[in-house]
Amino acid sequence: MPLDPTVTNPGLYRVVFENDRVRVLEYLDKPGDRTTPHEHPDSVMHTLSTFRRRLYAADGENRDVEIQAGTTGWLPAQRHSGHNIGDTDTHVIFVELKEGAGAATSELGPAGPAVE
Amino acid sequence: MPLDPTVTNPGLYRVVFENDRVRVLEYLDKPGDRTTPHEHPDSVMHTLSTFRRRLYAADGENRDVEIQAGTTGWLPAQRHSGHNIGDTDTHVIFVELKEGAGAATSELGPAGPAVE
Repeated sequence: MPLDPTVTNPGLYRVVFENDRVRVLEYLDKPGDRTTPHEHPDSVMHTLSTFRRRLYAADGENRDVEIQAGTTGWLPAQRHSGHNIGDTDTHVIFVELKEGAGAATSELGPAGPAVE
Repeated sequence: MPLDPTVTNPGLYRVVFENDRVRVLEYLDKPGDRTTPHEHPDSVMHTLSTFRRRLYAADGENRDVEIQAGTTGWLPAQRHSGHNIGDTDTHVIFVELKEGAGAATSELGPAGPAVE
């Protein structure tokens, strides 16, 4: 992954578990924090806080989202960046799937349910 | 999965997301609650509460565990049951992996880091 978020934004992403099937990341930021462009493989995300973010897709398009704590969803492989525009921390667990990752990461689409 | 926990213990397990790659379960119980024997495929677990449990492996062996909130780990495919022997709720997210599930579920080993 050329734009691994643990490399591009090491202060915000932390590897909390890894084996040959998955890698699990914890993302934690504060209001005003931004990520630089980075890539995710197909992942499950689970939110641990309620937050508001402005999301920038790879093509520069952006949109604002507000997501409640305790939300579970699918993050299809994509490149994006984000900006915490709310007044709460963003705290999210990502379970990255290694199986099928080669095919998936070639499909860098617009930010779907992306949160960071 | 013949002993799907959403079938064996529908009051404690809830499907919060599913697609062709994963199924995500939320487990929530109260002190004193027990599960009946059930099976998990290879899964990632993430704890949302701190709890104490007595775990029963498929062979009847049991052991007690205390796990802190915010713990992420690997649950290899297994059959087990559990008993909340603490004074806090057990609240856990399971990300079940569908890829390789056929091979994995044939290896029903003793309870490893199992929590319910």
